[in-house]
Amino acid sequence: MKKAMVVFSGGQDSTTCLFWAKKHFDDVIAISFDYGQRHRDELDCAKAIANDLNVEHKIIDASILGQLTENALTRDSIDIEEGESYPTTFVEGRNHMFLLMAAIVGKQLDAKHLVTGVSEADYSGYPDCRDNFIKSMNVTMNLSMDENFVIHTPLMFLSKSEVWKLSDELDALDYVRENTLTCYEGVIADGCGQCPACELRQNGLNEYLAEKEGVFIEQ
Amino acid sequence: MKKAMVVFSGGQDSTTCLFWAKKHFDDVIAISFDYGQRHRDELDCAKAIANDLNVEHKIIDASILGQLTENALTRDSIDIEEGESYPTTFVEGRNHMFLLMAAIVGKQLDAKHLVTGVSEADYSGYPDCRDNFIKSMNVTMNLSMDENFVIHTPLMFLSKSEVWKLSDELDALDYVRENTLTCYEGVIADGCGQCPACELRQNGLNEYLAEKEGVFIEQ
Repeated sequence: MKKAMVVFSGGQDSTTCLFWAKKHFDDVIAISFDYGQRHRDELDCAKAIANDLNVEHKIIDASILGQLTENALTRDSIDIEEGESYPTTFVEGRNHMFLLMAAIVGKQLDAKHLVTGVSEADYSGYPDCRDNFIKSMNVTMNLSMDENFVIHTPLMFLSKSEVWKLSDELDALDYVRENTLTCYEGVIADGCGQCPACELRQNGLNEYLAEKEGVFIEQ
Repeated sequence: MKKAMVVFSGGQDSTTCLFWAKKHFDDVIAISFDYGQRHRDELDCAKAIANDLNVEHKIIDASILGQLTENALTRDSIDIEEGESYPTTFVEGRNHMFLLMAAIVGKQLDAKHLVTGVSEADYSGYPDCRDNFIKSMNVTMNLSMDENFVIHTPLMFLSKSEVWKLSDELDALDYVRENTLTCYEGVIADGCGQCPACELRQNGLNEYLAEKEGVFIEQ
């Protein structure tokens, strides 16, 4: 009985990972982090997808991330007012933290396979999305918890077009296209069409569909 | 200008580390985590010591740890009521998490030296207190944040008696003895004298003092 926990945001990549995990493991749990995302819709979207796929879904309040930003650190962190919104500034080490939380929860739920949709290709180049970090983290978390976690990164070396191809192979292309949220403006499915995230997603999709139909697109 | 961040609980070990760091670095910051400790006195104690030593002190609300325990996971974690107290159950990977938070904060404050009082000797044997975890974590955090953190563990191979000796060498034995909190019952300084933590502390002190005076104690 192989059980996996998928780090899950409700976006294209992690949703593709969720389909991938459902194919490769006997039991799959999704874990999401609530840390003051740009759009609360992201979490609603994640909930809806987990529900559609009949996957158990844990949502962790990760507002701790907001506390660790420089803004928050300029005052006494412990004095942040209840209900005050946390800054959503990017926090270095964020994926590192998410993976660690997933491992801590995974250990308790007997899910030793951890799946994350991070990728070295096409992306922003955050160091904690790179393969060398993931490998090192796998060793470190096993040492820290006396466990044999295996971190799976099915998208690590895939371009956006190849991620679409993978979802197609998993018979999930249409579902992913229609139900995931990537857009900076919070528009589900094909999004606003204008922001960099939409552009990346749409270009990848066009490239894959053209390739599938045997059409050559000049890059 | 070498700046260090000390993971600081207000107990004997981390207070000894704080004195050690003040000796070895130009600037020292202490960081504590509020996660529903057995005794709130622990944090008050930490605050008082940081104040005495004129050290900047960050306190991070780490109630996230409570959410990651099995108790919390049996319900929807996000629905935990405000004000509801978190279970204080031990969380595997806790030191791992504290070290990562210290690194994230340390990076923003330009403190690349991280000091922690974990030890392999005399202790409970938590895997994330061992030297092999610390070394691996050092590499992992550097990869995840593109940084050159150095983790220092001045107590790693010291017995309790040797920790007292170190505090004596740092001219801090009396201060540590009178101002730190180790006791499970929350009694400061020499404590209740009955609990396992007090026993360990007292035995170490007796051993060191006897050795200092040239008295041989049969083990």
